[in-house]
Amino acid sequence: MCRWIAYKGAPVYLEDVVTKPCHSLVHQSLHASEAKTGTNGDGFGVGWYGDRSEPGLYREVRPAWSDENLQSICNQVRSPLFFAHVRASTGTATSRANCHPFSRAGHLFMHNGQIGCYSQLRRQIENLIPDEMYAGRAGTTDSEALFLLALARGGDRDPVGALAATLTEINSMMAACGACEPLRLTAAWTDGADLHAFRWASDNKAPTLYWRETKDALFVVSEPLDDTRENWQVVPQGHALSARRGEPARLLPFNISMRQAA
Amino acid sequence: MCRWIAYKGAPVYLEDVVTKPCHSLVHQSLHASEAKTGTNGDGFGVGWYGDRSEPGLYREVRPAWSDENLQSICNQVRSPLFFAHVRASTGTATSRANCHPFSRAGHLFMHNGQIGCYSQLRRQIENLIPDEMYAGRAGTTDSEALFLLALARGGDRDPVGALAATLTEINSMMAACGACEPLRLTAAWTDGADLHAFRWASDNKAPTLYWRETKDALFVVSEPLDDTRENWQVVPQGHALSARRGEPARLLPFNISMRQAA
Amino acid sequence: MCRWIAYKGAPVYLEDVVTKPCHSLVHQSLHASEAKTGTNGDGFGVGWYGDRSEPGLYREVRPAWSDENLQSICNQVRSPLFFAHVRASTGTATSRANCHPFSRAGHLFMHNGQIGCYSQLRRQIENLIPDEMYAGRAGTTDSEALFLLALARGGDRDPVGALAATLTEINSMMAACGACEPLRLTAAWTDGADLHAFRWASDNKAPTLYWRETKDALFVVSEPLDDTRENWQVVPQGHALSARRGEPARLLPFNISMRQAA
Amino acid sequence: MCRWIAYKGAPVYLEDVVTKPCHSLVHQSLHASEAKTGTNGDGFGVGWYGDRSEPGLYREVRPAWSDENLQSICNQVRSPLFFAHVRASTGTATSRANCHPFSRAGHLFMHNGQIGCYSQLRRQIENLIPDEMYAGRAGTTDSEALFLLALARGGDRDPVGALAATLTEINSMMAACGACEPLRLTAAWTDGADLHAFRWASDNKAPTLYWRETKDALFVVSEPLDDTRENWQVVPQGHALSARRGEPARLLPFNISMRQAA
Repeated sequence: MCRWIAYKGAPVYLEDVVTKPCHSLVHQSLHASEAKTGTNGDGFGVGWYGDRSEPGLYREVRPAWSDENLQSICNQVRSPLFFAHVRASTGTATSRANCHPFSRAGHLFMHNGQIGCYSQLRRQIENLIPDEMYAGRAGTTDSEALFLLALARGGDRDPVGALAATLTEINSMMAACGACEPLRLTAAWTDGADLHAFRWASDNKAPTLYWRETKDALFVVSEPLDDTRENWQVVPQGHALSARRGEPARLLPFNISMRQAA
Repeated sequence: MCRWIAYKGAPVYLEDVVTKPCHSLVHQSLHASEAKTGTNGDGFGVGWYGDRSEPGLYREVRPAWSDENLQSICNQVRSPLFFAHVRASTGTATSRANCHPFSRAGHLFMHNGQIGCYSQLRRQIENLIPDEMYAGRAGTTDSEALFLLALARGGDRDPVGALAATLTEINSMMAACGACEPLRLTAAWTDGADLHAFRWASDNKAPTLYWRETKDALFVVSEPLDDTRENWQVVPQGHALSARRGEPARLLPFNISMRQAA
Repeated sequence: MCRWIAYKGAPVYLEDVVTKPCHSLVHQSLHASEAKTGTNGDGFGVGWYGDRSEPGLYREVRPAWSDENLQSICNQVRSPLFFAHVRASTGTATSRANCHPFSRAGHLFMHNGQIGCYSQLRRQIENLIPDEMYAGRAGTTDSEALFLLALARGGDRDPVGALAATLTEINSMMAACGACEPLRLTAAWTDGADLHAFRWASDNKAPTLYWRETKDALFVVSEPLDDTRENWQVVPQGHALSARRGEPARLLPFNISMRQAA
Repeated sequence: MCRWIAYKGAPVYLEDVVTKPCHSLVHQSLHASEAKTGTNGDGFGVGWYGDRSEPGLYREVRPAWSDENLQSICNQVRSPLFFAHVRASTGTATSRANCHPFSRAGHLFMHNGQIGCYSQLRRQIENLIPDEMYAGRAGTTDSEALFLLALARGGDRDPVGALAATLTEINSMMAACGACEPLRLTAAWTDGADLHAFRWASDNKAPTLYWRETKDALFVVSEPLDDTRENWQVVPQGHALSARRGEPARLLPFNISMRQAA
């Protein structure tokens, strides 16, 4: 389990979201209050859009709470669209390549949750990654594989549909191998313009996800950044939250077919 | 605040104490139950005596709970006397030089707690380190300074007296500068033969410390390694526990004079 | 390209081979004299056999020349059989999982060289790793894949035959994909008792490899550890050097079939 | 010995200077051609001015040549004034706090060279740092001490005078302790507006330093970034190069008194 935040709106310094709020993401790295694990110290990452086509990326294996570089970068960088993530590993190694967000072809993706019985399914899942994208498989996480698969299934044009198709496929694999663990996730996806967030679980126990929209900005977060609970709305399970350029965020059904494999 | 363990007795693999017990030190790095902070993820270290005059030392800035090297070293190394420590920084940086245990001239030292108002006193405290030992000042912690000072005050011959003298001196400094924070510590000291542990606080709120002696071995620990509370005795505040070669461990008064500086 | 050493013989401290000789492996990490790259600073590792069934392993992403832990471990650990390796990446990331030696089921393997056009072939090569061994695929290097493949092809019983079969297979793949880069390697393999070293290249330009046998010990090294060139013999290209328990080392032909794939 | 670059001028992406030129600073980290050591792999750092009062800072212990984060930050960040540095330690530990540039009160400083017999003088030199600045002493290098001393001696108003005064003082200390090693340095200093570079050695063997001024920009570098030698001028020994806001760079004498201490 992990904790993350996504921001889209008027350009702000990353620190206004990542390090400064009383229950900022960095605070959550040490004191998450709604996660299975209160400590999210297995690496972290930030990805932001500036004036280049590719987003910037800073990922490190050390805990976020003591990283001086993260403090400085969040103090310096101002961005209209950024992701930040603190990781609690569900089994894979602590390495930069296993830290979120993942970046490819101008897109960013991050994830919280897990694919049941992933260690048995890893091989099969990786084999679905097309050859031409396999060089982008730098780590060993289920999260990075999910990103590459969804990108291959048209995530650049229809992220909601592509991720749903990918999860349906993985669900079938899980059923076929008799996985007794559930598939649970929250995730965020962006191409640098639109932002999509997802909450779903095969057992209806998805990790927490909240959002808040102001005149200027949209926040999507694993946990509210402050004590004003009334300002934060829950993203319901089985839903995606989509904010397209120039439009307010909308909740959409995000249902994954649970048909068993033949 | 930090957590630590010291072992002296028949040679055992480090893993029997550091990684394998249900509430092992590595478990405490993520789930300490009697510390102000449940997470001790700001680096760690192990120091052990083998067949060389100097102890071995492995210290790293990453959290203990995910370090593959620590697992392997604890699986391989068997020793009759070793220290292990997981760190929760009270303000100084996460660097190898700030990780415990500290080693010098065949001695090992580790520490949990803090010197009140250390950031104001650091300069004065460092100036008490003799010139010939100053090259050994590799980091910035109060803990390493304490070690070097006590060594300079005769710690190689009388560790209990030397540490008491050092703490008395630091107490005076704290009083002189009007420190409103207390001095609290547990600590362990060895020359490779004798083992000494200490528990003291200027406000009577020292960190927890327990010990257990069997026919073959002495364990001194921040927290019991298992659920058999009846097997673990408390080291009372204001006491040292000394185990000299071939003798059972003995509790001794360890009282620091609280006289104000003139 | 990388540099490595393997030792088998009377137990010695690792430092006698890894850190202390004038042209020790740690010296080679900064000043290799017979490699394409003089600097081998992309991580390092040591693996040694003690009194457990699995070897010990210490691998780190920092350069070997400045690692205090490596100095201490080499000072402490005495072993009759150990591998040490300093890495110069040929493209894959600097992570612990990509550092040599690799360990599995009591075996150690390390490698210097490269598989031509590996980034195109990686997928195909990984797909040859049997499902039951795929969890052991922790990194992304050609070296680790080579190890797992050879182990799957009977490396535990006949390492020379298994590695030859594996390289033949990879050669065919390279030919089939029109690889214009050669396959070059030196490598070392052990099960904790026997030691095998290999030198081969598809273009006859294998990395350097030397050996030296005394009454008590066998050294196999990328570069001689001292200036006494007359003490070191070249392992000829297309040969394996095998030292089985209780027998002197023997040079054997190690020829890889270069038949094109159909 | 180390290698560094300083840039002041029209805003450019850091990558145009730090990572992309054929003999960029990152290239120099592995293949310096005018330094005592060709490898500068003991950590690195970049410091840049954006739209905040404090500069941004990214410093890491790993070699610059393999750091993905450095690549991304240099690709994203555009700045009118920045420093970058790759380190080859002259003895002090590889830690973030020992990496250049150093930052304090809006200033940046970086350094190449060494203070002769620094390990004997360290204590004396540190004792010259005023109490109120001592909390800024995070590492153990001569470089950071030099920065804090010069800042304390008025570096914020007159960096050239303050650094000269500091070096004169250190020279006296060296003479008094009979130092047989020289004091050699190049260094760069900025307050976010003016840029000053220095080249001096007590034995006239200062590290190399070059500069190049175009209509839009000033580069000061340990080694030319490309093969057009004719475009790069040498900063003569015993000189400072000062570029004040809106004025072209000027060479000034930078002579350190070599009077012996009484």
